[in-house]
Amino acid sequence: MLFRSDEGLEGWGESCPLGGTYLPSHFAGGVRAALAELAPAVLGLDPRETAVVQTRMTATLLGVPGARSAIDVACWDILGKSTGLPVATLLGGVLQADFPLYEAVPLGTPEAMAEFVAARRAAGITRFQVKVGNRPEDDIARARASVAVAGDSRVICDANGGWRLQDAIRVVRALADLDVYVEQPCRTMEEIGRVRALTTLPIVVDETVLDLPTLHAAREVAGAGSVNLQIGRLGGQIGRAHV
Amino acid sequence: MLFRSDEGLEGWGESCPLGGTYLPSHFAGGVRAALAELAPAVLGLDPRETAVVQTRMTATLLGVPGARSAIDVACWDILGKSTGLPVATLLGGVLQADFPLYEAVPLGTPEAMAEFVAARRAAGITRFQVKVGNRPEDDIARARASVAVAGDSRVICDANGGWRLQDAIRVVRALADLDVYVEQPCRTMEEIGRVRALTTLPIVVDETVLDLPTLHAAREVAGAGSVNLQIGRLGGQIGRAHV
Amino acid sequence: MLFRSDEGLEGWGESCPLGGTYLPSHFAGGVRAALAELAPAVLGLDPRETAVVQTRMTATLLGVPGARSAIDVACWDILGKSTGLPVATLLGGVLQADFPLYEAVPLGTPEAMAEFVAARRAAGITRFQVKVGNRPEDDIARARASVAVAGDSRVICDANGGWRLQDAIRVVRALADLDVYVEQPCRTMEEIGRVRALTTLPIVVDETVLDLPTLHAAREVAGAGSVNLQIGRLGGQIGRAHV
Amino acid sequence: MLFRSDEGLEGWGESCPLGGTYLPSHFAGGVRAALAELAPAVLGLDPRETAVVQTRMTATLLGVPGARSAIDVACWDILGKSTGLPVATLLGGVLQADFPLYEAVPLGTPEAMAEFVAARRAAGITRFQVKVGNRPEDDIARARASVAVAGDSRVICDANGGWRLQDAIRVVRALADLDVYVEQPCRTMEEIGRVRALTTLPIVVDETVLDLPTLHAAREVAGAGSVNLQIGRLGGQIGRAHV
Amino acid sequence: MLFRSDEGLEGWGESCPLGGTYLPSHFAGGVRAALAELAPAVLGLDPRETAVVQTRMTATLLGVPGARSAIDVACWDILGKSTGLPVATLLGGVLQADFPLYEAVPLGTPEAMAEFVAARRAAGITRFQVKVGNRPEDDIARARASVAVAGDSRVICDANGGWRLQDAIRVVRALADLDVYVEQPCRTMEEIGRVRALTTLPIVVDETVLDLPTLHAAREVAGAGSVNLQIGRLGGQIGRAHV
Amino acid sequence: MLFRSDEGLEGWGESCPLGGTYLPSHFAGGVRAALAELAPAVLGLDPRETAVVQTRMTATLLGVPGARSAIDVACWDILGKSTGLPVATLLGGVLQADFPLYEAVPLGTPEAMAEFVAARRAAGITRFQVKVGNRPEDDIARARASVAVAGDSRVICDANGGWRLQDAIRVVRALADLDVYVEQPCRTMEEIGRVRALTTLPIVVDETVLDLPTLHAAREVAGAGSVNLQIGRLGGQIGRAHV
Amino acid sequence: MLFRSDEGLEGWGESCPLGGTYLPSHFAGGVRAALAELAPAVLGLDPRETAVVQTRMTATLLGVPGARSAIDVACWDILGKSTGLPVATLLGGVLQADFPLYEAVPLGTPEAMAEFVAARRAAGITRFQVKVGNRPEDDIARARASVAVAGDSRVICDANGGWRLQDAIRVVRALADLDVYVEQPCRTMEEIGRVRALTTLPIVVDETVLDLPTLHAAREVAGAGSVNLQIGRLGGQIGRAHV
Amino acid sequence: MLFRSDEGLEGWGESCPLGGTYLPSHFAGGVRAALAELAPAVLGLDPRETAVVQTRMTATLLGVPGARSAIDVACWDILGKSTGLPVATLLGGVLQADFPLYEAVPLGTPEAMAEFVAARRAAGITRFQVKVGNRPEDDIARARASVAVAGDSRVICDANGGWRLQDAIRVVRALADLDVYVEQPCRTMEEIGRVRALTTLPIVVDETVLDLPTLHAAREVAGAGSVNLQIGRLGGQIGRAHV
Repeated sequence: MLFRSDEGLEGWGESCPLGGTYLPSHFAGGVRAALAELAPAVLGLDPRETAVVQTRMTATLLGVPGARSAIDVACWDILGKSTGLPVATLLGGVLQADFPLYEAVPLGTPEAMAEFVAARRAAGITRFQVKVGNRPEDDIARARASVAVAGDSRVICDANGGWRLQDAIRVVRALADLDVYVEQPCRTMEEIGRVRALTTLPIVVDETVLDLPTLHAAREVAGAGSVNLQIGRLGGQIGRAHV
Repeated sequence: MLFRSDEGLEGWGESCPLGGTYLPSHFAGGVRAALAELAPAVLGLDPRETAVVQTRMTATLLGVPGARSAIDVACWDILGKSTGLPVATLLGGVLQADFPLYEAVPLGTPEAMAEFVAARRAAGITRFQVKVGNRPEDDIARARASVAVAGDSRVICDANGGWRLQDAIRVVRALADLDVYVEQPCRTMEEIGRVRALTTLPIVVDETVLDLPTLHAAREVAGAGSVNLQIGRLGGQIGRAHV
Repeated sequence: MLFRSDEGLEGWGESCPLGGTYLPSHFAGGVRAALAELAPAVLGLDPRETAVVQTRMTATLLGVPGARSAIDVACWDILGKSTGLPVATLLGGVLQADFPLYEAVPLGTPEAMAEFVAARRAAGITRFQVKVGNRPEDDIARARASVAVAGDSRVICDANGGWRLQDAIRVVRALADLDVYVEQPCRTMEEIGRVRALTTLPIVVDETVLDLPTLHAAREVAGAGSVNLQIGRLGGQIGRAHV
Repeated sequence: MLFRSDEGLEGWGESCPLGGTYLPSHFAGGVRAALAELAPAVLGLDPRETAVVQTRMTATLLGVPGARSAIDVACWDILGKSTGLPVATLLGGVLQADFPLYEAVPLGTPEAMAEFVAARRAAGITRFQVKVGNRPEDDIARARASVAVAGDSRVICDANGGWRLQDAIRVVRALADLDVYVEQPCRTMEEIGRVRALTTLPIVVDETVLDLPTLHAAREVAGAGSVNLQIGRLGGQIGRAHV
Repeated sequence: MLFRSDEGLEGWGESCPLGGTYLPSHFAGGVRAALAELAPAVLGLDPRETAVVQTRMTATLLGVPGARSAIDVACWDILGKSTGLPVATLLGGVLQADFPLYEAVPLGTPEAMAEFVAARRAAGITRFQVKVGNRPEDDIARARASVAVAGDSRVICDANGGWRLQDAIRVVRALADLDVYVEQPCRTMEEIGRVRALTTLPIVVDETVLDLPTLHAAREVAGAGSVNLQIGRLGGQIGRAHV
Repeated sequence: MLFRSDEGLEGWGESCPLGGTYLPSHFAGGVRAALAELAPAVLGLDPRETAVVQTRMTATLLGVPGARSAIDVACWDILGKSTGLPVATLLGGVLQADFPLYEAVPLGTPEAMAEFVAARRAAGITRFQVKVGNRPEDDIARARASVAVAGDSRVICDANGGWRLQDAIRVVRALADLDVYVEQPCRTMEEIGRVRALTTLPIVVDETVLDLPTLHAAREVAGAGSVNLQIGRLGGQIGRAHV
Repeated sequence: MLFRSDEGLEGWGESCPLGGTYLPSHFAGGVRAALAELAPAVLGLDPRETAVVQTRMTATLLGVPGARSAIDVACWDILGKSTGLPVATLLGGVLQADFPLYEAVPLGTPEAMAEFVAARRAAGITRFQVKVGNRPEDDIARARASVAVAGDSRVICDANGGWRLQDAIRVVRALADLDVYVEQPCRTMEEIGRVRALTTLPIVVDETVLDLPTLHAAREVAGAGSVNLQIGRLGGQIGRAHV
Repeated sequence: MLFRSDEGLEGWGESCPLGGTYLPSHFAGGVRAALAELAPAVLGLDPRETAVVQTRMTATLLGVPGARSAIDVACWDILGKSTGLPVATLLGGVLQADFPLYEAVPLGTPEAMAEFVAARRAAGITRFQVKVGNRPEDDIARARASVAVAGDSRVICDANGGWRLQDAIRVVRALADLDVYVEQPCRTMEEIGRVRALTTLPIVVDETVLDLPTLHAAREVAGAGSVNLQIGRLGGQIGRAHV
């Protein structure tokens, strides 16, 4: 997505909806429809005033933060170009020169997933996000097979909210002896809180963190020690809060 | 919106989005985009199997319940026509022959709103939903002016979630001596819960009730004695649960 | 139990009390006495208006939901016959073509129960509800013997509320290493909540779920991940809520 | 109800069901059916061993405590006769020589109820249980009219669980300036707890106290300062606990 | 202790103080001093009216329940003799013909305690109350040595409130794999509650249960599944409540 | 009570039991009996080492803190004499040159109590502790009559734990418009906590504060803003903690 | 305070400690000492990378956020000058063209304070922060006198944490009928939470908000509807979080 | 630090700040600056009146308790010298003749730390405070290596608040089978409370205990069984409270 300022600066932004079953507002048609409402609303604003743009956007459309995010990112791009500074500097500077990649291991048979982990580990990857969130028996096998070949890599079992509460309870019991993280075991914060009460595995919350109150709830309700934030999902709000 | 079954039965449904600042998923563009995803997905299903249709819809698109609702209503219309029974009978029968209307009093000056109430009361209306949710001082005046002419009518002050917490606290204090209900004082359940702890006025929750868990939270967190449900908002789920 | 509508349609319903020590209102004499009060009260109503019939019944007799259930089921039978549609369709449609049976393993010696499980497993059964709820030492042996021959079948240890709190605590400790569910360990929700706090085993709640509030309590108080609902016990109320 | 011991002593007991809409197990048909199960079960026991009789009864039938109560009272009657002591002595002795009667004021128009209170007060009654639990507006008028003529009598507004939560909230607000008690405002302990949180009026719990756990809940959940116990309802259990 | 009624009936009661460091009011001098106040106060009362006697006693002296207990027991003795019935009958009858003894294993070296257990087990004892509550390392050894020779006997590790909180935490961790009960790990209910939160071992509460509220707290705060009641400690109050 | 050190220094201490219905361990006979156990136990200790003496005393007798207090005070007296410093200096120094006396108004008719207050106020007293804790109607009259003549004096209504919960609820409601404190409305902290939840009057806790944990509970459970500590009751423990 | 970048840009910052009794780290000597540690630590960093500077500062000195704040402000000044943009733009833009001033009314006699309010109101001020936090009786008079002449101005009674809990309870009771805010009634969040539970007045939290966790606690514990943030106190952390 | 009384007595005190990243107020510059404010404020006071000196100090400067502590210690020194008694006697006497030293094991490689433990254990040390609080994987190795050679010594893993919450969760999981204490795993009490909920290891709280409220929070929030108090950190307040 391309925005062009009156001075001719081009700001690029994008939104990555991930499909209508990922999160309520993450389907491409909805994002496009939202952009059609947001774009006219921000015309005439100074794109460098990112909070002013944000305020106008939420006054136009409460939902679909992914659409607001695309415009927000484009505004930051323009702000950076207009000042001749990297956006990172404007956000406070580079705090960490590099960041260890973690690689998602696609859902498959335990064997296939273990093979994937082994191959990528050979290629130097040391953090794996093993996709689970399906039939409990299979997910347990997936996690175990992956851990078995992961060596001292960090393994995060990411259910993407796919387990019903009872299944999540069964899986975390079955993985209790492994040194793994469990990410977003169920769809709601309330369910994750119940899982939290029944396991000591470190929990990561992802899809249910949508704004500052849910970020706080991740700590309070779900007792999460980490959250997995995606810039696009949050429409630009938390991103800046945590610079 | 019109659905036509293979047998030629026509089912009508509709969605009433109310605009992008009412609720996150309530803007017409998003509903239209959602219908574009949902419609192909339900083709081929038996429209009389409403739960099957519902299940298919949520497996296609998690959000925008208002779009699912339109299709759901159309399916019930077809089910009624196909059995020759009123939908009311299929939902359990008519429990109450009539239902006292309450009339929304549009936001205006206290004088204008009082005039409106007086006129409608003369016309026989006995339940008023007085719109507030703006500057606290003005809202207090609006409520008082309306109550002054409402006689023994029931008055609900509906903020539509428009007050910040501190303003809501001030308004409920200022209305404490009136026999009014306060509807949706703030935008989030957490804030309504805090208002609840600081007033004994009966509270009605509306926009934050989106499904069974939030219906329950209305009771647990916000201590609400009533909820205001709109069929469209819920995508057909709670409606049936409370037949 | 047979109801006949004015149009000559026959609706069948039944109640299965299970005896006076199973649940407070589950004894045949009480159900018969309740039917004697309910039957005259619903005469003259349209049997197809199931909620109207339900409302009349609870206005006649608060207790003995199993008696109301018999009449409710008969009304649905008549509604189905009168529309020419399977009741399943009127309840939303068939969501699942088949449902894996779980078979109750009658209380006996550990050896007898293991033999039963082995025999039924050979016959293709993969879900067992092992009856426990007696002397803790014996129940532990029963569960272990059954699991030992159950292979990858799902095993639910159903105490039918038979353990005192301290005994339940001992049993769940002793079964902590098994992949079993524990169903209704104690008689009250409060006790189940205390058991919940001391084990990570998945818990199923059955006899204490009697209506929507106790269904919610199963989640809130007892942190149950599953409930075991019996249509008859609930007098027709929750059944429809979860279509 | 008459029991005769082998020694020819006659013990009298009775149950007062109050109708099928008062409490789940309080309808005459059910009590009669329960007695038909209980009576054979206790034959042969020593009627003077009241706890043994009680234990046998609950092992025969969990519900319908009112039926157990009739037998329990008869046993105490026989125990008294056999020892030649008043039952009061066997229960610990007479702690209070007289007990101020409170008189129930039947539901009626506010005027009729006030007239009733005035007349009975003239006759020396100083404690009134004013029946409410209907339309909030009328109940408020009933309470105010009764208090106006009650002088320094104690006035208890007894809703018998008849208000929905929101109505109870409205009534306690409207009575906040009176020196009255509110008895059993709603049907469930959970609802009474919510009313409790919104008023400082003293609350009495009646129908929801059925055994020791609910007696405790009356204190914990509903914060009740008094309970209204009826021997019959409890089947003889709490009665002795509080001697 | 001997009471003699006007009719010449003799009632015997006693109090067993256990020393000034067992419980605040359990030293012989205090009990004697209390009896010197209580005895004159109950003269002239009918000893068969046990609740009247109890009421008079608590109106004379709030503390030292053990002294009240001696008089209470004597009154029951007289009541039994005067009616010619066993006290057991007057308390409701004999519910259980015999009761398995558990034997206290005196604090000693692990070896000595194990020897004691082995010897008594050979003599047919199957329930042991192993005394601990000292240095954690030694207590762990005591418990393990005793369990090792206890076979399928029930073993209760009774600390008599002797551990500081941190030591209790260490011991229950170290015993987590054993099938033992832990009795009164710390002196206060609040501390026992904290131990409860850190172990799944069944907990028995003893010394801190002094009346109905602390009995309830044993359940609520300490989540105890059993309590160990001593008639003398409670001054006659709970004893009757639980007949 | 007189202690004499080996060096011939005399330390004076005393205990003021207030009678057996004031607090469980506050009767003179019990204190005397306790002293008979404590005195021999502390012989030979250095009286200037007050914590060592305290430790020995609690190792001898857990209860009757008032007896320990007498000895503790005597030891401080000796420490002061031996160092030639006022005890106040050894406890940290004089923080406040004078302290406004509050005077207890003995329980009587409202008229008598008002007369007392008026007379003492004329004599310059400005803080009154009005004794209540009896029949609610009378106590309300006592408080109102006293406040009416107290001018701007501070009035504390001290129930000495005398109200049952329901009566306390009624009194604090009836006094809600006065600027009074309520001291120790009920006997237990749990009851005071329930009163706290139903009034905004400032609450003072007295008799239930016995040590550091109950001091903390006064804040946590009863939300008390002040406590009324009596050195004697606490056996010397809190006194020093708050120097 | 002046910072000069290598490029010769000058950044100005300052810290306003307010004295050693205002907040623990707010005394000039401490701030100066802190700057002496911080200044060398940040030399060589790019002042435009404000988060990098912040990170270095907290890695050097955990406390005295006011000192960090001075450097942080200076860095933002340099960032603005180096990009030629107002700092407001870099922080997101100007969201509100003007901001109603509220004026602090210095602590004095009620009369003097009322005179001050009247004079400033005549000068157009409509928001007053009335200083209280002293003797309750005087503070009540101060608040009432100020409100009496404040017309429809907003009045905030700011105790600066000066009341002990019991005094705060008395003051909020005495002001309950006024439309005022209460700011920072006591020194700790725990005490403010207790005040919150006893009044419905809107509460503002100021001095106890020091970072994101205490900001959240202001909402959770103290139920505050507003916070009063001072950039300097927070060392630059929350400021940016809420852009 | 040296104080000299008017009588020529010298009192010595000191403060040990431990650096600016240990605790917010623990850097030498700040302590020196604080002393410059405190010293003049206490001139003229009687140094033997330690509470008067303390009160004056906190009225001068709320923060930097370590500076107050130096003066407080010096005053006690003078008090001891002036009375000719050891300070220990004035604080209550010596309760324990010796105290087992625990020795801090400096952060290093697991091998180096194990070597250190082995050497010191050979020298007779039996309590080790193993420094951790760094990379979780390394800390786990450090703890295991140290425990392996510590024999029956007591091992405390002291993180000095160095772990982020998620890392602390991982470490306590990994150490669950060891008999170690965990000291100050994270920086805030809230985080320690979350760690507490996920492990049964005994927890020690150190740096977050700053005064009586945080001492209580250590028990309430973090469920700590022990605290590690440093006289200097607390400015003399808790020290005396626990004599």
